[in-house]
Amino acid sequence: MNIKTISGIFCIILCMTTAARAENGHQLWLRKGKANPVTIVCQGSSPILKNAVKELEAGWLGEPGSKLILSVGRDKRLKGDGFMLDSRGIHASTDKGILYGVYDLLRRQKTGESAKSVVSNPAYEYRLLNHWDNLDGSVERGYAGRSIFWRGDKDLAVTQNDRVLWQEYARACASVGINASVLNNVNASPRILDPEYLKRVKAIADILRPYGIKTFLSVNFSSPVRLGGLKTSDPLDKDVIRWWKVKTEEIYKLIPDFGGFLVKANSEGQPGPQDFGRTHADGANMMADVLKPYRGIVMWRAFVYSSQEKDRARQAYNEFMPLDGAFRDNVIIQVKNGPIDFQPREPFSPLFGAMKKTAVMPELQITQEYLGHSYQLAFLAPMWEECLKSDTYQEGKGSTVARCTDGSIFKYPYTAIAGVANTGLDLNWCGHPFAQANWYAFGRQAWDHTLTSEQIADEWTKLTFYNPDVAYGKSEKHGDWERGFLKPVKEMMLESREAVVNYSMPLGFHHIFSADDHYGPGPWFGPKSVRPDWTSVYYHQADTNGVGFNRTRSGSNAVSQYHEPLASQLNDVQTCPEKYLLWFHHLPWDFKLKSGKTLWDEICFHYDHGIQQVRGFQKTWDLTEPYVDKQRFLQVQNLLMRQTLDAQVWKDGCILYFQQFSRRPVPYDLERPVFGLEFIKKKRPILIFE
Amino acid sequence: MNIKTISGIFCIILCMTTAARAENGHQLWLRKGKANPVTIVCQGSSPILKNAVKELEAGWLGEPGSKLILSVGRDKRLKGDGFMLDSRGIHASTDKGILYGVYDLLRRQKTGESAKSVVSNPAYEYRLLNHWDNLDGSVERGYAGRSIFWRGDKDLAVTQNDRVLWQEYARACASVGINASVLNNVNASPRILDPEYLKRVKAIADILRPYGIKTFLSVNFSSPVRLGGLKTSDPLDKDVIRWWKVKTEEIYKLIPDFGGFLVKANSEGQPGPQDFGRTHADGANMMADVLKPYRGIVMWRAFVYSSQEKDRARQAYNEFMPLDGAFRDNVIIQVKNGPIDFQPREPFSPLFGAMKKTAVMPELQITQEYLGHSYQLAFLAPMWEECLKSDTYQEGKGSTVARCTDGSIFKYPYTAIAGVANTGLDLNWCGHPFAQANWYAFGRQAWDHTLTSEQIADEWTKLTFYNPDVAYGKSEKHGDWERGFLKPVKEMMLESREAVVNYSMPLGFHHIFSADDHYGPGPWFGPKSVRPDWTSVYYHQADTNGVGFNRTRSGSNAVSQYHEPLASQLNDVQTCPEKYLLWFHHLPWDFKLKSGKTLWDEICFHYDHGIQQVRGFQKTWDLTEPYVDKQRFLQVQNLLMRQTLDAQVWKDGCILYFQQFSRRPVPYDLERPVFGLEFIKKKRPILIFE
Repeated sequence: MNIKTISGIFCIILCMTTAARAENGHQLWLRKGKANPVTIVCQGSSPILKNAVKELEAGWLGEPGSKLILSVGRDKRLKGDGFMLDSRGIHASTDKGILYGVYDLLRRQKTGESAKSVVSNPAYEYRLLNHWDNLDGSVERGYAGRSIFWRGDKDLAVTQNDRVLWQEYARACASVGINASVLNNVNASPRILDPEYLKRVKAIADILRPYGIKTFLSVNFSSPVRLGGLKTSDPLDKDVIRWWKVKTEEIYKLIPDFGGFLVKANSEGQPGPQDFGRTHADGANMMADVLKPYRGIVMWRAFVYSSQEKDRARQAYNEFMPLDGAFRDNVIIQVKNGPIDFQPREPFSPLFGAMKKTAVMPELQITQEYLGHSYQLAFLAPMWEECLKSDTYQEGKGSTVARCTDGSIFKYPYTAIAGVANTGLDLNWCGHPFAQANWYAFGRQAWDHTLTSEQIADEWTKLTFYNPDVAYGKSEKHGDWERGFLKPVKEMMLESREAVVNYSMPLGFHHIFSADDHYGPGPWFGPKSVRPDWTSVYYHQADTNGVGFNRTRSGSNAVSQYHEPLASQLNDVQTCPEKYLLWFHHLPWDFKLKSGKTLWDEICFHYDHGIQQVRGFQKTWDLTEPYVDKQRFLQVQNLLMRQTLDAQVWKDGCILYFQQFSRRPVPYDLERPVFGLEFIKKKRPILIFE
Repeated sequence: MNIKTISGIFCIILCMTTAARAENGHQLWLRKGKANPVTIVCQGSSPILKNAVKELEAGWLGEPGSKLILSVGRDKRLKGDGFMLDSRGIHASTDKGILYGVYDLLRRQKTGESAKSVVSNPAYEYRLLNHWDNLDGSVERGYAGRSIFWRGDKDLAVTQNDRVLWQEYARACASVGINASVLNNVNASPRILDPEYLKRVKAIADILRPYGIKTFLSVNFSSPVRLGGLKTSDPLDKDVIRWWKVKTEEIYKLIPDFGGFLVKANSEGQPGPQDFGRTHADGANMMADVLKPYRGIVMWRAFVYSSQEKDRARQAYNEFMPLDGAFRDNVIIQVKNGPIDFQPREPFSPLFGAMKKTAVMPELQITQEYLGHSYQLAFLAPMWEECLKSDTYQEGKGSTVARCTDGSIFKYPYTAIAGVANTGLDLNWCGHPFAQANWYAFGRQAWDHTLTSEQIADEWTKLTFYNPDVAYGKSEKHGDWERGFLKPVKEMMLESREAVVNYSMPLGFHHIFSADDHYGPGPWFGPKSVRPDWTSVYYHQADTNGVGFNRTRSGSNAVSQYHEPLASQLNDVQTCPEKYLLWFHHLPWDFKLKSGKTLWDEICFHYDHGIQQVRGFQKTWDLTEPYVDKQRFLQVQNLLMRQTLDAQVWKDGCILYFQQFSRRPVPYDLERPVFGLEFIKKKRPILIFE
């Protein structure tokens, strides 16, 4: 791997000051170029406004000597931290709005988009990153180096390096509209609430604040026992409630604008209110009451599944729907986009729109846990767009997931959207140069879910690869670059997630990855000693008769959790979209698809198409060489080689495995496998190719 | 790997008797089927004739109750151990001729070839296998298990298992006309002449004899010192000569029809006459004189190359041509097919036809040292046919290598051809099921070098895969099998060696394999500590200006060792066959080939075509499933998967390596590499994929 981990912050500073064109990716989409002089009129002088002015001065690509007015004041066209741009300058209701307006204006200059008459309001109030960073510095499902926040109990002192890095991080978040950050893993250590740690949390919060980022923490439900020494963590116990009150007060003394708690309770072994015979509502409400005086909120995760229920996809719905209306108004239920777990493709979770009396927020995963870690190019905007624009029909046609969660349909006091971060100490933050696009895209979609993936890819590619000295469209070579780089690279990005789906889990396949690392194929995983819903065989249900999970009315009836007409559409194999076919249906191998091909043949063609797509990406990228710096060119070129190999392993492993049941030949048009099934099972390709 | 090594001979016997249809490959092309009753009239009763009768009775597929006459007597149409077939039976001048006639007749019945009027004479008198078997049981460049002859000093006792195996071996050799066997490695241990070992040699010879196989031994030139305790091995020393005389007498007492010695002298560190200031002729003639009274012969290898000469390809010629005429008439110079060392493609050695006063015999390599060991399917008949039918022009047009060595042009008292065996204790003898075809093909070409590779592939495929119960053409399913198996498999075989050339060393590349195992790519191999002609960089000479070894008149002038008009044809880049281009020429990367493509592009296309060919073989083989037993089907299917992977490693390794010099892109039409150069260099793919 060419990805370097930061050993000391000094090298970063060095890179940024003396070799700004080295293009190691550390500057993300905020590459520093030449700027024109500009005069800025700004009445306020808050730290946020100061940052706004500083950014404008450092990045202005408009007419040299222009004069810009930054004004703060109410306007009925504005909502929350929204802003307006016009020829005179930027207007917003809040200082944060000005900052967002500045980043938007600079982005428009760099990408050639008009800034003449813009009104832009955020879709969600809270646009959060969830960092699954452990206090020891490791990052759960992180593939870009160690944590940027934590280094373990023995290294809590805040260094100048820390401050520089956190500021860079805050700036990057703010530049795409992210305004909140949960600093630690949802599988939370109670230690995060220890005064020693809270001191470091305060230091982080102080650096994030001038960029408009609110600080949140994940908390462990049994903190009263494990940290406080109490005998119980029962949420209805007075001592427990008092403990949380005191702890919360302690936090707000350090961080007056602290955001609140994120809680994973009674999920995958984490403690929770059910341990004491209480409900999720009992637990969440107790915390909500404690936070209420400070305007803090509780984000309570719905990612729960007991080992009893026969269909894991039904469980979050089954467990939470009865509690609808039982939560305080400063509780938001955080729901993963799909009913299982961040698979390359899932239908949306049926909880969206179904919980009508409780605020619900989507949780998306930016880190590529199931989409190739930081080895594979997978632009995730299309995946999130697919979810957010899915119609739940819960309040009639057009009740998209986005509109069911952003307050348009249900008037929640708080709205939010979270993304599980993909950041780490890797010099380029995200490991894969194109993984940066997912951080970017999450921020942009969280601000405005009506944006298309194509628009976001267009912006990001220009910002990340175009000459940062030149406003877009003002270079002679602009047309060359557009044809030689922008167009093919955008096409590649937009195709990339579907390629991953094709070579790993096409046609509704899900959860057939290798169990230990969630990277390569593992449809064979099904030891008797493991609970069934942690195995692959549970999800694909392949046998000689057919394949797929029957979630129709004749099966687990998970379809009934969706609103009509969707429930009936998904229930009927003739109307169920083929991309969800094996998610909802168990079908014979010779079932005829719309293409006229049998299910088996179509499975083979999808796997094959996946690897062909990645081979195509390799060709596409090779042709961009004249338009991109050597460093990133070679890094991506190498990564795409590996991705083709990974696609081969996926394709071969899955085709050979399922062929044992289908007992049918691979269609003649397709290349035969090259990795044997036993080889793939025995040798862990991820280990081999590193 | 699915290849099983024999742990005890009992399992073989078991397989052959109780499960003849198990098709583990042990029966080679001699699969036992049903036979019809036949009456045989045979006057003699020698062990050879007894075997002939036994074979006929066990394998007769002609009219039930036929009567056949086997008669021995002179006939002017016959030469050596030739035979004649007609409706009455078999006629030959020798008992061996009858045996060969029997095998030929049975083959014709099994393959549907007419036996009505056949006269068949062997091209060469000696048709030998050279076993590179070490006395400790290992086999140099052997990829099919341990030696069938040796198990080390401590296990010299001859067991019943040994006898069964040696008999099966002798029968297989005789069935394709092989009549001599060198039992030990040319890198010979002096111990082979120890009485203990000679006892075992005698036991082997006694079992080979009834199948017409003569026994030979490789001897170490310093045996007089190392075994005899003399102070010198100088071939002109009287004590040395006496030692060899006594030893030879000892041998002939045990084995009255012993064939003679094979000697690798002053080659790759082996001792030889030059150690004592004597010539190859001095050494060979001393031995020849000792063997003469017994009609024994010396096969003296010309595989020599000192580290002084600038072009290794010139050296055998340079060292041996001055000695032409200096050898006794029972010495034969054994010359490898090409001037370097059994590469996937070489031009023929210029010694063929050039040594006019000395018998010369071709040495071919059956074991796939440079063509994928027993992992890759490479049918070598086309390679040998290419060599044997090459025109040396030494005695005018039509002076092919075959005609220069078989006695047609030069009237040598002895003629011979040797093949380095690919046999071992693997249950199927050769490792790869299709490697058996190379053993078969060597025997057939040694008997009749006018046979085409297509004819040989046709015979072998029918014998090895067609229903052994049914004479060819007499089954209802015959047509199906011909279309579904014979035709595509033959095409695959005939294409296979060229595929190896394409994905490993196309366009005249040679000696660019990985140095330690001669398996994967290693064009980068060139440590300063190693003599240059053992490195790869010496042979490809790649730099930013171009690639290839200049052996033209402006270079090493190796072309001058060939006879006109060939010398001039090879010397001129416009007339040099493209398959030998980089063997003889150093050319710029943008040199235009006949296709109109540049040299660089053409190199890429050849590598790519190679892997596409193997992918094609995979498809071809998959379609044969209904026509072949499960066991061999799956084994070959698995091996072809690995071959595609190997081809990928070769293609990627070579293209990425040479691209460092060519500095040109891979043509857009072609797939990009998937294995990185550093990965291939660092991790040994052969180790990974086993």
